[in-house]
Amino acid sequence: MDNMIMNGLYIFEKEKAHGYFYKVKKLLYDDNSDYQNIKVFDTYDMGRILMLDNVFNVSAAMEHFYHEPMVHIPLGMTEKPANVLIIGGGDFGVASHVLKHQCVNKVTMCEIDAKVVEVCRKYFPQWADTCEQDKRFQLHIEDGLQFLTAAESESFDAIIIDSTDPYGSAENLISPEFYELAYEKLKSQGVMIQIVADAYFYKNTWKKVIPATRSIFDVYAPLFMPIPFYATVSCWGLLLMGKNRSDLNPERISESYLAKIPDLKTMTADLVKGWFSLPPYIRQFFDQI
Amino acid sequence: MDNMIMNGLYIFEKEKAHGYFYKVKKLLYDDNSDYQNIKVFDTYDMGRILMLDNVFNVSAAMEHFYHEPMVHIPLGMTEKPANVLIIGGGDFGVASHVLKHQCVNKVTMCEIDAKVVEVCRKYFPQWADTCEQDKRFQLHIEDGLQFLTAAESESFDAIIIDSTDPYGSAENLISPEFYELAYEKLKSQGVMIQIVADAYFYKNTWKKVIPATRSIFDVYAPLFMPIPFYATVSCWGLLLMGKNRSDLNPERISESYLAKIPDLKTMTADLVKGWFSLPPYIRQFFDQI
Repeated sequence: MDNMIMNGLYIFEKEKAHGYFYKVKKLLYDDNSDYQNIKVFDTYDMGRILMLDNVFNVSAAMEHFYHEPMVHIPLGMTEKPANVLIIGGGDFGVASHVLKHQCVNKVTMCEIDAKVVEVCRKYFPQWADTCEQDKRFQLHIEDGLQFLTAAESESFDAIIIDSTDPYGSAENLISPEFYELAYEKLKSQGVMIQIVADAYFYKNTWKKVIPATRSIFDVYAPLFMPIPFYATVSCWGLLLMGKNRSDLNPERISESYLAKIPDLKTMTADLVKGWFSLPPYIRQFFDQI
Repeated sequence: MDNMIMNGLYIFEKEKAHGYFYKVKKLLYDDNSDYQNIKVFDTYDMGRILMLDNVFNVSAAMEHFYHEPMVHIPLGMTEKPANVLIIGGGDFGVASHVLKHQCVNKVTMCEIDAKVVEVCRKYFPQWADTCEQDKRFQLHIEDGLQFLTAAESESFDAIIIDSTDPYGSAENLISPEFYELAYEKLKSQGVMIQIVADAYFYKNTWKKVIPATRSIFDVYAPLFMPIPFYATVSCWGLLLMGKNRSDLNPERISESYLAKIPDLKTMTADLVKGWFSLPPYIRQFFDQI
């Protein structure tokens, strides 16, 4: 059984030999772009869902579990972040959360797939409208690696990589070439965050990412949190990387920092500290990489 | 689509309008007891699984994500716990973790369903053998409420309620009558922990449990953690209750306490502090109960 729609009523995603299914109210969109298959549908439990190449990408009901840490952790790690780059993120979700930070005066979203952007403008207007009505927001339809190559050195306070899983068109986003470019384009003291994988079923992804980032960034911190809607073992891993930083201290994500973020749903200072604290089963694996 | 086995190849569990599925290697057992349907099967990703009334109950591969907090949090909250009662827990999993604590000199497992015990002895010997070879372990086949009624007052340092979801035969384990009895049988300073539900899809369960426990226990603390293998939104809720306690402070679950627990896989002191820290979306809901 591959990832598929079954009877038009339930949608499935299989990871290894297990997975999730959701009861579908209505399939709203199903077409191929130059890069991938794009589906949008309404579900009973997860709200509206975007699916790319038959992998669940974002759910309107559950988005904050993923978008909030992806945005508020890296921005809290930098002093008054002004210039933020998002690579991927074509659903506008990450960008809409970045714009909650008043200190940010420029958010660039570099998405490779114009069709994802067009579809999400129509079906997820709550994020697209927030962004496109904000003068601080800029959209580039371009490959992330190409965009970075042309970008000015040391220009970004934070880079957020909100890509599909690092296979196929997203595979170059875990290459040493990409990490070197990103490091060069970050300001001194800048940080980057990337969604990687869980550490239980996708050890091979971490075995590529950790050595590649370790040789380039001055410090990195894997962090694991429950992201409902993404399958596997609930603990999904992000990787936070720093330039000319000696630490990426979760103490910076304080209650007073979080209290300033409008409509925050999933984060507390203690939860964030926990996400930085690797449980023994993950620590043992990382010690071996 | 109800919970079911499909084609003998995939096993499903549906919660509301979504759920999990696992690819099955082999169905090992499928029969009814006086209380419920019991299935055991081997899966590719989750190891051996016990399913009760078509609800996933325990997975050999993922058991530590659930058993470790259920045991090591309440035992860490009490001074040298000696006498521990488990209500339910017929798979012997919780008891096998309790026995890791050298200060414990008696563990009573009170399981209503003799058939669950018999099946788990055969199919999960790693837990049953650990318990039944330990002189500190005692088994009672009895309804939890009946057992508690006959138990001596103030006899248990900790009570762990490892039941199926609180419907049907387990429904009396969230009744005021049950909580009053349990309170009476706890020693002064004793604690109880109970698995309840997630706080996203099962608000009604919390709306029953919180008022019932609030009126009886001196203090309670809901805690939420990712439990892979249990469906819904990844953040599953346990409720910790105390007798003659002014607080249930997560600081007690220190790194030095955890370091003494053999083969610990999922817990760190910072993670536990995070589990006690309710994210805004849950805090808002609890404030209204």
